[in-house]
Amino acid sequence: MEVTPIRTRSKAFGILIFAVFVVLMLQGCDSNSSHEIAQVLLALLVALTAAKLGGELFVRIGQPSVLGELVLGIVVGNLTLVGFGGLDFISRNLTIEMLGEIGVILLLFQVGLESDIEKTMKVGVSALLVASLGVIAPLVLGFIASSLLLPGHGFYVHLYIGVALCATSVGITARVLRDLHKSNTAEARIILGAAVLDDVMGLVLLAVMQGAITAANTGKPVQALDFVIIVGKAVVFLIAAPIVGRIFAPKLFNFVAKFKAEDLLLVTALGICFGFAYIASLIGLAPIVGAFAAGLILDEAHWASFRRRGEQSVDELIAPIAGFLVPIFFFRMGAGVELKELVRPQALFLASGLMVASLLGKQVCGLGVLQKGLDRLSVGIGMIPRGEVGLIFAAIGTRLILDGEPVIGAGVFSGLVAVVVLSTVITPPLLKWSLTRRQSVGSD
Amino acid sequence: MEVTPIRTRSKAFGILIFAVFVVLMLQGCDSNSSHEIAQVLLALLVALTAAKLGGELFVRIGQPSVLGELVLGIVVGNLTLVGFGGLDFISRNLTIEMLGEIGVILLLFQVGLESDIEKTMKVGVSALLVASLGVIAPLVLGFIASSLLLPGHGFYVHLYIGVALCATSVGITARVLRDLHKSNTAEARIILGAAVLDDVMGLVLLAVMQGAITAANTGKPVQALDFVIIVGKAVVFLIAAPIVGRIFAPKLFNFVAKFKAEDLLLVTALGICFGFAYIASLIGLAPIVGAFAAGLILDEAHWASFRRRGEQSVDELIAPIAGFLVPIFFFRMGAGVELKELVRPQALFLASGLMVASLLGKQVCGLGVLQKGLDRLSVGIGMIPRGEVGLIFAAIGTRLILDGEPVIGAGVFSGLVAVVVLSTVITPPLLKWSLTRRQSVGSD
Repeated sequence: MEVTPIRTRSKAFGILIFAVFVVLMLQGCDSNSSHEIAQVLLALLVALTAAKLGGELFVRIGQPSVLGELVLGIVVGNLTLVGFGGLDFISRNLTIEMLGEIGVILLLFQVGLESDIEKTMKVGVSALLVASLGVIAPLVLGFIASSLLLPGHGFYVHLYIGVALCATSVGITARVLRDLHKSNTAEARIILGAAVLDDVMGLVLLAVMQGAITAANTGKPVQALDFVIIVGKAVVFLIAAPIVGRIFAPKLFNFVAKFKAEDLLLVTALGICFGFAYIASLIGLAPIVGAFAAGLILDEAHWASFRRRGEQSVDELIAPIAGFLVPIFFFRMGAGVELKELVRPQALFLASGLMVASLLGKQVCGLGVLQKGLDRLSVGIGMIPRGEVGLIFAAIGTRLILDGEPVIGAGVFSGLVAVVVLSTVITPPLLKWSLTRRQSVGSD
Repeated sequence: MEVTPIRTRSKAFGILIFAVFVVLMLQGCDSNSSHEIAQVLLALLVALTAAKLGGELFVRIGQPSVLGELVLGIVVGNLTLVGFGGLDFISRNLTIEMLGEIGVILLLFQVGLESDIEKTMKVGVSALLVASLGVIAPLVLGFIASSLLLPGHGFYVHLYIGVALCATSVGITARVLRDLHKSNTAEARIILGAAVLDDVMGLVLLAVMQGAITAANTGKPVQALDFVIIVGKAVVFLIAAPIVGRIFAPKLFNFVAKFKAEDLLLVTALGICFGFAYIASLIGLAPIVGAFAAGLILDEAHWASFRRRGEQSVDELIAPIAGFLVPIFFFRMGAGVELKELVRPQALFLASGLMVASLLGKQVCGLGVLQKGLDRLSVGIGMIPRGEVGLIFAAIGTRLILDGEPVIGAGVFSGLVAVVVLSTVITPPLLKWSLTRRQSVGSD
């Protein structure tokens, strides 16, 4: 079947056939009989198209493409507001959620691969200071803001809101840094190192809050040993991961290099990434922290024997998989935002106050950077996004009961969600502006 | 943190830390508190490791790696038989199932990309004959075998068993053809073309059987119009897909080539693949038929403008994604086999009879090859696997009620499942043998 004769013979025929095609497709949208995989395929089609369309639109107006993916996600996820509920299944589809989760895990793995462990260790003290300030300042400011905005609520509510503002979700920042080719700068290393430590601190704070509220409810004393175990596990992981990785990763790669099966370099690298992400999640850390650690540990030298045979390197192999799955994560993050919940006056009022506390609090972070000449503003901005970590904190708060009432009520929850959404949406443009406003001094 | 000093200082320390790591990991296996993503990560880790290990073992003994993936899948999926149920969640995990489905869709897309549409059209008559013989012969032989083995059952039961034996699932064959670099031979084109037509015929037969049994139950006449609609949709799809694709695919690629967002070639190709697979599934065809059609239509020339900028081609971009997801499909296919169900004497007795009917029936296929000098044996062997299509037929049969009893009872169902498993497992070694026994005359 040649193309040219058909095209010259009758273009109208082609258009007719295309119309039949579209009708067949739309017919499917209504039917509920489609199987699970059909739903997944349709959701992937919509998510990928919308994400790329959004990315393109925002790149054209000089914004990072991730913002476009988020915004188109918000649009598609809220079409019910204009009476179209046909795409609602996308944000509820478990497979799409999991594909996005694997996407963000691979994104942090990529960023880890691009980072250098020795250089990251060198900015360790700055990262620790940034993380500590990034926890203390938003907690204190969040507590104060909450006390002023919600005078009717008690001490633990204010404290819990403060804790929820501490969380840093580094997915968005990592993506913007990658898109701007800045993930190997000193600032990026400080932000990522601080985000890892922040995750550990957040874990501890959350456990302390849960313990304290349970203790306040039941009168039982707080079990100090529990916290020691939580902290101990996280510290063991963060110390053991690089040591185990640096010793065993080269051996593992050399071992599988002797194998004959296909795609072994890819699968070994994915296995290490998923393994570290899994262990992190067991300990209570975010899986992305494990994936970042895995990427940080792995080094070009590990797969030298594969490269000598002319195979692609790990970052080249991961790139298409990430290119497929990462946009799904950000699209879905947007699609999960319920605008209806956010535009309530009370939620917006609370959110604006908390947003100020949270922005100011994270700007204090920049002061933790010890090295001279670095871009402190970008570090502070990079720490702004609350992302899914903030949402998890808020959701746990709604299930904690104090004096017969949830610590985080429906109104406060909406406010916190608004903060998470705002902090996520403003970061890409702010970070792009701050990183490109001058040539970064710390890049090398 | 330098590697060398640590390693020289104390190797024992490294091993100790590794032990702690393993303990932490195993601890997690018991806990049910892990989140959804943790389960997915662990399942991916086990599936990828087992698939590659199995692939390696079987490659070493001269067998196709896909057989190793299947066999290790069967082993891991049946560890309950030796008292270890800790990995049972893998075959039940929906995300793993969907990842595998996306994997097999991408596999057929790859095979389609490697095939040439003009050359496939040239063997069209052979493919139609192969498909027709491949439906009629197993149906008749299956009916006879069933009549002999199950004398107590009625006409419709024998007929339904015959219909279930007609299905061809081309995933395994496509994989073996790819692994042996034979997917661009005339034999491969005939097998794949016949498998597509077989899927259409199977769809019609299934509808006829369901209609006839419903009619026999209720006394209402069979609605001939329903079959016309089913056949009509499938025929429209198979005719419209290449026309629409050949006209619009180049336009689409040229359009997105003007965009600035990243990974556009990859996402556009994936979009076309998923879109065609989705439409196929709406019509009632297997999604892999749509994916194969999408691959067949696309051509290197379509993304020439991307190549000129130095970007990778579509097959290079799809390869790592397929390398990640395809082994999951075959591992999971193996893990879904319940050995306990299969080793029942009655099931094995029935299965062996049906297996003979099915093998003989598909060998008749080879007679449909009109071209001289082609490897008819390989075509016949390539059509053997029943795969998930056979399982779907069998499962629908258990839900069809005739005279108050299911058409396919529990015993017959186990027998059909055994046929599916056996036909899937024997194909890779048989096909490898037949394809490599002499240089294929039809390759070009």
